[in-house]
Amino acid sequence: MKIGMLTSGGDCPGLNAVIRGAVLRGVISHDTEFVGFRNGWRGVVEEDIVPIVRHDVRGLAKQGGTILGSSRTNPFEGEGGGPENIQRMLDANGIDAIIAIGGEGTLTAARRLHDEGGINVVGVPKTIDNDLAATDYSFGFDTAVEIATEAIDRLRTTADSHGRCMVLEVMGRHVGWIALHSGMAGGAHAILIPEQPQSIEQICEWVESVRDRGRAPLVVVAEGFTLEGMDEAHSHKGLDAFNRPRLGGIADVLAPMIEERTGIESRATVLGHIQRGGAPSAYDRVLATRLGMAAIDAVYDHAWGSMVTLRGTEIKTVSIAEAVGTLNRVPQSRYDEARVLFG
Amino acid sequence: MKIGMLTSGGDCPGLNAVIRGAVLRGVISHDTEFVGFRNGWRGVVEEDIVPIVRHDVRGLAKQGGTILGSSRTNPFEGEGGGPENIQRMLDANGIDAIIAIGGEGTLTAARRLHDEGGINVVGVPKTIDNDLAATDYSFGFDTAVEIATEAIDRLRTTADSHGRCMVLEVMGRHVGWIALHSGMAGGAHAILIPEQPQSIEQICEWVESVRDRGRAPLVVVAEGFTLEGMDEAHSHKGLDAFNRPRLGGIADVLAPMIEERTGIESRATVLGHIQRGGAPSAYDRVLATRLGMAAIDAVYDHAWGSMVTLRGTEIKTVSIAEAVGTLNRVPQSRYDEARVLFG
Amino acid sequence: MKIGMLTSGGDCPGLNAVIRGAVLRGVISHDTEFVGFRNGWRGVVEEDIVPIVRHDVRGLAKQGGTILGSSRTNPFEGEGGGPENIQRMLDANGIDAIIAIGGEGTLTAARRLHDEGGINVVGVPKTIDNDLAATDYSFGFDTAVEIATEAIDRLRTTADSHGRCMVLEVMGRHVGWIALHSGMAGGAHAILIPEQPQSIEQICEWVESVRDRGRAPLVVVAEGFTLEGMDEAHSHKGLDAFNRPRLGGIADVLAPMIEERTGIESRATVLGHIQRGGAPSAYDRVLATRLGMAAIDAVYDHAWGSMVTLRGTEIKTVSIAEAVGTLNRVPQSRYDEARVLFG
Amino acid sequence: MKIGMLTSGGDCPGLNAVIRGAVLRGVISHDTEFVGFRNGWRGVVEEDIVPIVRHDVRGLAKQGGTILGSSRTNPFEGEGGGPENIQRMLDANGIDAIIAIGGEGTLTAARRLHDEGGINVVGVPKTIDNDLAATDYSFGFDTAVEIATEAIDRLRTTADSHGRCMVLEVMGRHVGWIALHSGMAGGAHAILIPEQPQSIEQICEWVESVRDRGRAPLVVVAEGFTLEGMDEAHSHKGLDAFNRPRLGGIADVLAPMIEERTGIESRATVLGHIQRGGAPSAYDRVLATRLGMAAIDAVYDHAWGSMVTLRGTEIKTVSIAEAVGTLNRVPQSRYDEARVLFG
Repeated sequence: MKIGMLTSGGDCPGLNAVIRGAVLRGVISHDTEFVGFRNGWRGVVEEDIVPIVRHDVRGLAKQGGTILGSSRTNPFEGEGGGPENIQRMLDANGIDAIIAIGGEGTLTAARRLHDEGGINVVGVPKTIDNDLAATDYSFGFDTAVEIATEAIDRLRTTADSHGRCMVLEVMGRHVGWIALHSGMAGGAHAILIPEQPQSIEQICEWVESVRDRGRAPLVVVAEGFTLEGMDEAHSHKGLDAFNRPRLGGIADVLAPMIEERTGIESRATVLGHIQRGGAPSAYDRVLATRLGMAAIDAVYDHAWGSMVTLRGTEIKTVSIAEAVGTLNRVPQSRYDEARVLFG
Repeated sequence: MKIGMLTSGGDCPGLNAVIRGAVLRGVISHDTEFVGFRNGWRGVVEEDIVPIVRHDVRGLAKQGGTILGSSRTNPFEGEGGGPENIQRMLDANGIDAIIAIGGEGTLTAARRLHDEGGINVVGVPKTIDNDLAATDYSFGFDTAVEIATEAIDRLRTTADSHGRCMVLEVMGRHVGWIALHSGMAGGAHAILIPEQPQSIEQICEWVESVRDRGRAPLVVVAEGFTLEGMDEAHSHKGLDAFNRPRLGGIADVLAPMIEERTGIESRATVLGHIQRGGAPSAYDRVLATRLGMAAIDAVYDHAWGSMVTLRGTEIKTVSIAEAVGTLNRVPQSRYDEARVLFG
Repeated sequence: MKIGMLTSGGDCPGLNAVIRGAVLRGVISHDTEFVGFRNGWRGVVEEDIVPIVRHDVRGLAKQGGTILGSSRTNPFEGEGGGPENIQRMLDANGIDAIIAIGGEGTLTAARRLHDEGGINVVGVPKTIDNDLAATDYSFGFDTAVEIATEAIDRLRTTADSHGRCMVLEVMGRHVGWIALHSGMAGGAHAILIPEQPQSIEQICEWVESVRDRGRAPLVVVAEGFTLEGMDEAHSHKGLDAFNRPRLGGIADVLAPMIEERTGIESRATVLGHIQRGGAPSAYDRVLATRLGMAAIDAVYDHAWGSMVTLRGTEIKTVSIAEAVGTLNRVPQSRYDEARVLFG
Repeated sequence: MKIGMLTSGGDCPGLNAVIRGAVLRGVISHDTEFVGFRNGWRGVVEEDIVPIVRHDVRGLAKQGGTILGSSRTNPFEGEGGGPENIQRMLDANGIDAIIAIGGEGTLTAARRLHDEGGINVVGVPKTIDNDLAATDYSFGFDTAVEIATEAIDRLRTTADSHGRCMVLEVMGRHVGWIALHSGMAGGAHAILIPEQPQSIEQICEWVESVRDRGRAPLVVVAEGFTLEGMDEAHSHKGLDAFNRPRLGGIADVLAPMIEERTGIESRATVLGHIQRGGAPSAYDRVLATRLGMAAIDAVYDHAWGSMVTLRGTEIKTVSIAEAVGTLNRVPQSRYDEARVLFG
């Protein structure tokens, strides 16, 4: 069998480990032949194909990024797009199946290619935000949490020494998992997540309560958090206080508001892309390797239209149709649990 | 309510995070009063008790070790030992319940104290080897895997540059989880675990196969691994090749055997105690914090004789009686999965 | 002898290690008594004094921040300020000498207190930017370079996988040492420093040359870099392209300019405060410990008005008057050396 | 010009960064052509030569090991050995000069090849132990100190929690720099180095003094340390207490002796090869890159028989004849400085 792989969407530590896991399992267990589509679906619709042999995945588990490149191309668009063109391209290259490693968009496209065009495709979920309900954890998330936690550890000492309030913005557009876990691990005094809008008054109350206990407040905020009572345009990637298009993140909005209301010198740090790149944690390497291996099993099981996921300690296969569409929100119970750290 | 906590047995990153989680949850949610028994059960039988207030757990999540100290004392032994003496001591100090953080021995003792003496005790499992079947993962394990993986990453470059075989010994007396996960993450060419004895011939076959592919072999071995066909006395913490009591670990046995049989220069590294100490990973801080919090809930639920565990993404409470006694062995399927990395 | 210590100005990894080094040397070698002035010179002018004993410096070498707190108070201002008031306060508390750990402002103040008021003061230079000519390296600098280098390592994989240009802003208000060293260590394709203004055309030429070689450009820019031909107000912490007060750093200015001119998707990351906090590197711990010890020797040598510095592998004592005032600029030869990495 | 490079002797983080620095400087500034001799001098005497182009050094600064491989072959031995054969080989391959990156043996051989045979050779010193007097610091040393310091940080928490004495053995066959710096950085209570033999009585006195202050003793020992009053055969890589050839290092000798004499449970950790491999620190990357660049300058200056070194912040060129032969011992003053940490 000849399998084509692609990686799509934003960077995520562990992409290369998935590729390695798939290739080793395929080559050793099934004598599979591999090719890669370069730059996500773009390589599919533009027939940009490179061979992948065992030697190519040597030492790959610990490398960030993806040797296949990535893009946000939609496989239903462009000249070579759509199920018919893609099937023709696969046939022309003798490719029997596609393993698509990507986020919700990629997985949804994969499912449509299968449902509407009968393309043999298996998905591997990739979301650094951990926002897919079908998997307990997704690779890349643990690494992002580690990086954010290390940043908190560093900011804390400065906060404590200088009596400042530090506001750290981490990733999490729709869900607050990175903020929740790094905030718990680092000992944040407020964790602000998209699932739980808060008013600036509440946030300042927490901040002042920390100051009153003689400590320096540390606030972790997910990029997708919105202030209660402030319309979304102003609070997130929107307009600044003067109704101008705003650079910077929500932390850049919060820090001056906190300073103004509490009188505590406040500083924002937007962690940004360094959460997405570089060597994955051991946890993510193991998870990604196992998902890659399981994707090969799914291919040999002809489980087209399905994707691999983590449940407990087991790797499972689920239908993409069931898996996507439900956001993996931080449940109220987990937020309540973290609340004892606040203030 | 007044709760006494203790930490018992070998060091494990996350012990302090459990204490922090418990204290914050107790103080904030229930106005609980806390004391610590110093040095494990020894503090119980010797009535060595220190108060713990909220301030004491400040910044504690990231600190290795345990502020309460530890020992291997058995609570059924000594003058103050046994359920009756202990109950008397608890009454004298107005202590309503014990939270015991420890391994299988500690948990079994806790259960007996409850079953035989009606002591109000709740357990938190601590095993860096991840060898308790009642929990998906135990805190400290992720940190140990990270440390072992970083060691593999470092040894690899030397192996590759110098054409050597590197043999790394990691923890794992009865089960091979640390070896399995770090070996998968680091790209080991053979993973040797207690659950799967192998002959020296098989190991050398893997090593030679790697060399024949032009690479430098890297072997990860759990301390409890035994060579097939070699009696236990010789292979593990036993006698050396000359029937003398042997210093060093199984890696020190394997490296010269591999060198002699394959002609490949081989070097042993025994990682030892550095896997057990220092700052926990973010994963372990979150898990340990949640277990500490859940232990407080178990206390307020009067779930005496139970312990808290991780199942999937949830913290559960299970009876200690059910939980201990079954070793969490690496299942055949996980070993088979890893086998594609071998040779 | 009774010595009072203070830490002043911005955070810097190694402050606590200086304190530890001084206290251990003093206590063990001279039976010195120590106090700390809280929050820099504010503790001096407000007579906010805490005792420091040997136990207080336990485990302190690896802790970021400063146990004494910091501020930017000027010792010549306020009710208790000026040499006469300070000498009276020192006499009242039986304090024989001050060790002032701080940047150029602090050292200059220290010198004036000595010159104008005869205060017994010894300085320890603290500059994370490494901008003091009197010392080869200052503590904190190595840690900042490590953190910036790790960020580059992480950004690189994303840049390469996604064909993006990454612009990383690091500290360095007046000098570009952190950018130079982290850029060399991380393999940046352009290093932009205050000492070497460049035009946007030149920068884009480097970026395009990298792209043309099939690679993803990585630009490291010091916060104090100014674009040639752009007035300072616009390029640094000044006005945005629409003449509005600008949030964000120079990287936020450069990334869109590069994207617009080259057509290469470009992203800015402003590393910010995480370069200043947290555990110091081993290099900085050793350097800071030695400086702290040497400060005690300077006190017992009555080398008032002097400060301790690193020259080669030796710790020396120099007059503050000579030491401050000259900025430690990146020399042309070091920039030329790095130029082979560009483009 | 066509330059051949080789790396020789034990692994050392930064070897690849030297290669990168040399290649970039050569290619960009002089249009130099490069080849590599594989596996140290063996590639020279066996004419095992590979081309090196700019692309080969991409991303190389952060990689441990050496892409050229290494060995301990002596260039004066074997069929192709000796200056005449080597010159013939160089001529046959059009190679104008050799850059030899290695330790004292390699540098001495390089000098003899130049002195006795007129071979155009320039040396780059490589010693992880930092034992060459001609350079302030050598690359690899800083990384080794970081790794050893991290190990100390981890061992400390276990020592403190369990009331144990931890004995950590680090590299340093003839000099104690790694032990000195990591011991100062990590806060060791005794630092045992080859330059300063101590009696077991003195060591136990320090250990007991620490215990008496309520702390857990941490001893760092360089592999080349010898116990006073114990002949070398017994103390270092020699005979065990029963006059048998001994496995393990000096830490394995000391820990049981300390335990027996003081009654404090003591554990040995031998750090071993993990100090030599893996990604170099930013410091070492910068130093190694600069040395590689300077080696090219030395070649174009026809500074044959010389080597490049670090003095203060400058890279200098010195005659190998002067540079080797003098061991860079820890001076008494540095040991005395560290003594305030002891006991």
